[in-house]
Amino acid sequence: MSAGNREFELIEWFRRTSAAHPRVPVGIGDDTAVITTSPTSDLLFAADMLMEGAHFTIPPATAEQIGWKALAVNLSDIAAMAGTPVAAVVSVALPRKLGGEFARRLHGGLHELAARFDVAIAGGDTNLWDGPLVVSVAVLGDAPKSGAVRRRGALPGDWILATGHFGGSLAERHLRFTPRVVEARQLSELATLHAMVDVSDGFAADLHHILDESAVAAVVFADGVPIHGDAVRDATACDALERALGDGEDFELLFTVSPEDGQRLMRSQPLAIPLAHVGIIEEGRGCRLQRADGTLEPLERRGWEHH
Amino acid sequence: MSAGNREFELIEWFRRTSAAHPRVPVGIGDDTAVITTSPTSDLLFAADMLMEGAHFTIPPATAEQIGWKALAVNLSDIAAMAGTPVAAVVSVALPRKLGGEFARRLHGGLHELAARFDVAIAGGDTNLWDGPLVVSVAVLGDAPKSGAVRRRGALPGDWILATGHFGGSLAERHLRFTPRVVEARQLSELATLHAMVDVSDGFAADLHHILDESAVAAVVFADGVPIHGDAVRDATACDALERALGDGEDFELLFTVSPEDGQRLMRSQPLAIPLAHVGIIEEGRGCRLQRADGTLEPLERRGWEHH
Repeated sequence: MSAGNREFELIEWFRRTSAAHPRVPVGIGDDTAVITTSPTSDLLFAADMLMEGAHFTIPPATAEQIGWKALAVNLSDIAAMAGTPVAAVVSVALPRKLGGEFARRLHGGLHELAARFDVAIAGGDTNLWDGPLVVSVAVLGDAPKSGAVRRRGALPGDWILATGHFGGSLAERHLRFTPRVVEARQLSELATLHAMVDVSDGFAADLHHILDESAVAAVVFADGVPIHGDAVRDATACDALERALGDGEDFELLFTVSPEDGQRLMRSQPLAIPLAHVGIIEEGRGCRLQRADGTLEPLERRGWEHH
Repeated sequence: MSAGNREFELIEWFRRTSAAHPRVPVGIGDDTAVITTSPTSDLLFAADMLMEGAHFTIPPATAEQIGWKALAVNLSDIAAMAGTPVAAVVSVALPRKLGGEFARRLHGGLHELAARFDVAIAGGDTNLWDGPLVVSVAVLGDAPKSGAVRRRGALPGDWILATGHFGGSLAERHLRFTPRVVEARQLSELATLHAMVDVSDGFAADLHHILDESAVAAVVFADGVPIHGDAVRDATACDALERALGDGEDFELLFTVSPEDGQRLMRSQPLAIPLAHVGIIEEGRGCRLQRADGTLEPLERRGWEHH
């Protein structure tokens, strides 16, 4: 639920007021909850809601893209725990003026992604109204046998690695991204992942989630952050880095591993997409950006702001 | 997801286009989906969305009542399978003008019900916008050891039994009802439940769901239907029966059992709320209402309409 509460700081209140539950070892505050179903099997459980005007506008977004994205953001949350998605339920508040053909196309986009990852669309709820379009998806997944990879667990000395490229996603990419489900599972089989998050709020904001939960600090290498071509267009070098660190909705993975695992992964590049070494974990609190000349400046939650 | 697609007949299309999945023995078309987690353990998975203007208006509905109802309709779906709810995730599209205090009161009402049934609020997503209030809840539950009680399974000769009273719920009761989780579990331990549904769309409409799924017919006893006091106020006897059969949002249980189990349950009245013998299952298709004088007339999905 990394995309949650972006605008509204309720999550800490929800966390404080939610009682502990013996069947829920991980609740509010990670990418998904963890539900114990038997002594040997944990499930991942998450939900995300997309709202017209807040997460997309029609046009340019098409019905198919909205359906795809509504499921994709949920699968990205399962990927962030190194899990395997199994089933989803889909609730839609459908504007009367869009009609049934729009709903069918929306479900078409959603089913296309579901089929690609062998996820069952197990149920849901569609109601007409006169408000804007809302698509709410909840997803269930299997935790990896080695246990869900959480936001907490990063250790001083860890390397911070990232999949893919960052920045400029909101121009178009956020509507047709592939959640890193396969990559997360591969990584969890090749290395011991200490902490992981998917980048929805932004590279800097989601790295801060790992730092907060793990109670550690980080240094990010300014020239190590892989910048997407979408962030470079019409941008200075400074602007492009700022966008890579702050834009959000990249839906790539940020994770930490031991230096040995980090070196091995960087050498072998085992994924179909590139892995980048973007920083290191340190003792303490806070996050700093290291320029090529070695100078350090604070990297805030909202991304780096050049002067 | 008995409350789904009330206005919009997409459900059959969704069913046809949803692929079978080995981990999902029950998908779209029952009160919840059934997810296989291990050879010996099944989970129930359901979602329902409440929309301002469609399912409630503010006022008279309060924030606490909306939160309560958003979880309660989901717990009622779990009850309809004789399951035990375990965890829920909650997504809210929150009108900017209502603000954080409203959101906290909404979650207060939701948490009050969650605590009563030992359900963990395991995560979610809250975003501000300028549209109306939408609350979307997804719930996970344990299936009973004897297996989830489905809509299909009613047999010719079965007695149809109902918990509680029907009609007039929309005046106020629908905002503060208690889902029949405890009662459903008790019933499943005391008898072999052949088919069950919770009454959200209406007594007649939801009975038709059992008949459709089980491929059987039914006779409903006009003077056997327990009419709620809320349906009697300012109503003729005819109107009151019509409202009991058609109003909906009663969130009581309708279920079928063998005549032997039916007689035993009616004699022992084992629940804290009354059980009524409201009809019988027959071979064939369709549903008829039997008046006190023995005459029969069709009982349509939308309820009985007097002339």
